[in-house]
Amino acid sequence: MSKTFVLAPDSFKESLSAKEVCRAMEKGIRKVFPDANIISLPMADGGEGTVDALLSAVNGQKVDILVDGSLENQIVHTYYGLIEDGKTAVIEMAKANGLELLSPNERNPLLSSTFGTGQMMKDAFDKGVEKMIIAIGGSATNDGGAGMAQALGAKLLDRNNQEIARGGGNLSQLEQIDLSQFDKRLLDIEVLIACDVTNTLVSPNGASHVFGAQKGASPEMIELLDANLTHFADVILKDLNKDIKDMSGAGAAGGLGGGLFAFSNAKMVPGIDLMIEFSGLEDKVKEADYVFTGEGGMDFQTKFGKVPYGVAKTAKKHQKPVMAMAGYIGKDVDVLYDEGITAIFGILAKAQSVEEALLDGAKNIERTAENISRLLAI
Amino acid sequence: MSKTFVLAPDSFKESLSAKEVCRAMEKGIRKVFPDANIISLPMADGGEGTVDALLSAVNGQKVDILVDGSLENQIVHTYYGLIEDGKTAVIEMAKANGLELLSPNERNPLLSSTFGTGQMMKDAFDKGVEKMIIAIGGSATNDGGAGMAQALGAKLLDRNNQEIARGGGNLSQLEQIDLSQFDKRLLDIEVLIACDVTNTLVSPNGASHVFGAQKGASPEMIELLDANLTHFADVILKDLNKDIKDMSGAGAAGGLGGGLFAFSNAKMVPGIDLMIEFSGLEDKVKEADYVFTGEGGMDFQTKFGKVPYGVAKTAKKHQKPVMAMAGYIGKDVDVLYDEGITAIFGILAKAQSVEEALLDGAKNIERTAENISRLLAI
Repeated sequence: MSKTFVLAPDSFKESLSAKEVCRAMEKGIRKVFPDANIISLPMADGGEGTVDALLSAVNGQKVDILVDGSLENQIVHTYYGLIEDGKTAVIEMAKANGLELLSPNERNPLLSSTFGTGQMMKDAFDKGVEKMIIAIGGSATNDGGAGMAQALGAKLLDRNNQEIARGGGNLSQLEQIDLSQFDKRLLDIEVLIACDVTNTLVSPNGASHVFGAQKGASPEMIELLDANLTHFADVILKDLNKDIKDMSGAGAAGGLGGGLFAFSNAKMVPGIDLMIEFSGLEDKVKEADYVFTGEGGMDFQTKFGKVPYGVAKTAKKHQKPVMAMAGYIGKDVDVLYDEGITAIFGILAKAQSVEEALLDGAKNIERTAENISRLLAI
Repeated sequence: MSKTFVLAPDSFKESLSAKEVCRAMEKGIRKVFPDANIISLPMADGGEGTVDALLSAVNGQKVDILVDGSLENQIVHTYYGLIEDGKTAVIEMAKANGLELLSPNERNPLLSSTFGTGQMMKDAFDKGVEKMIIAIGGSATNDGGAGMAQALGAKLLDRNNQEIARGGGNLSQLEQIDLSQFDKRLLDIEVLIACDVTNTLVSPNGASHVFGAQKGASPEMIELLDANLTHFADVILKDLNKDIKDMSGAGAAGGLGGGLFAFSNAKMVPGIDLMIEFSGLEDKVKEADYVFTGEGGMDFQTKFGKVPYGVAKTAKKHQKPVMAMAGYIGKDVDVLYDEGITAIFGILAKAQSVEEALLDGAKNIERTAENISRLLAI
């Protein structure tokens, strides 16, 4: 009888998307098991690639949309996803407000705004969704989700009752939040934030201090951004009666986590858990003879919510063997054996630079999948 | 029932000896199969490491000996092996006359001599051997085996009936070979030359032109050495009635191949075949559930007499699966699948320089052996 393989890898960052990894794995497997039943479920852990992975896993619908970019006068041609017969939207904030969309010298968290992410949410409402999955990660912003709220109709007013300008640098001007024209549908639906970050909104463990520098903030800017987010939280407490300052995860995506807590009834869920649930991985795994997974790099930290760990946990429930591949195999990777990973193979064919290795990803994955399959065929 | 593993790798050049590779493989396997029956047969293909591999495979006896080095006034503390109850000597010419034993600025094929190799042979005779395996490869010499013959009592005389000086540069002085004091036992015993080289003694395809440069010869020296070997062959034809000039393999090891043809009844055999025969690999493979092999690098050329190929061929006869490991996996390695290699895995854990990879050999082999074993244990 022909064997069933479930392929559920993450992307190999800077080398291949999760879908491309699936394709390379399949090519390798088919050389040994030409008639295999191969089910590809490209995965993501809630970070970049989440919407693509989910759409590909469940055959969802891509919604093209023009939204504001992170900076004034930028327009981004982007998309979000609809799954579950259009009842659930999958929105990846980085598709509108990702750090990768800005050149290094454009990166300025004083000015960047999550307005575009809010526009995607608004568009999804207008399509009648009942649920939203918002993947936050890789953000260029530090505005506490203020832009997102503005896009949904919240008026962020200064002492002269004028709307404040966008960007985390302008939150100090905020005196009052007016929700009279706010899209209240956001309060009625289920909002799931796919996120692994547990940082608080402010303080040394907060968004600005921990993530500000990588978004282009100087030490002085970080102090200012932290003070502004503190002020934003104070006004939210006063006008919305929500205290987001010490909430775990509020500091994710430059405070967008906190903003979603404030303006919706969002719950934060580990990205990989959401991915596994909505991709239907478990049902597929039940049918599998073998599960293949992988990620660009694997080490003991893979246990903290990464794709191969989530896939292994799911497979372990059903006692299915899991073959993992990685370009980089780091410290104490053997802790993963207890979690359901059967074996881990490095894919590299030779000593080479990282740059060269990234270019060889597809053929290395194909060759490794072929050889694992040859062994399984004994 | 506990599984039987036969470990038959080559060395991983510049990283681990074949014995060390066996040890790393065993450590990895034992993590998964603690009670496995593991049979280690370190291999070699007739080049460097052959005597160590054979001694280790069959529990032979090491004979320590002082012999002349390749250059005048050098003494080398070295060894050869006795196997088959002392009836067979295993002599590795590179242990006395290897290129590796000379610093780059000492290398001079005009002066270097195979005298030390002949001394090892003479010592083995005195121990009463009936057979000799002579592994030739990695030589620093280009003397056509003249030094070897001198050590065994042949007089190489100039026009004044004086012995010529050692080294390929002095063969032009040779007028006559006097075998009156030559150790004729060499004609009575079986001499097997472990060698893959098919070059002839002289001409553009000969020892001097093909291998001279890597031994330190300039273009002018190469012409001189080639002319001298031609002259040596002429004198051999005249005095010994053997025509070695066009014999395949006579050009191996700077013409030592030709010298052995001239002064003994040597037969040339592919190194890996000799290794397999004398190590008893086939008998062990018959008992094996799994065979592990490997080499530092593997590619389509592995088919041309390399260890993993020989091991695979032997295992294929008995339909045993062969797991191969390599640090470098090169072009068209998949031609090996048809030859009996079940699967080939790269051992590298990350993108890194060759120097770093060589240092990580043991732990990478151990990890890869462990993960292959985990897969075999499904």
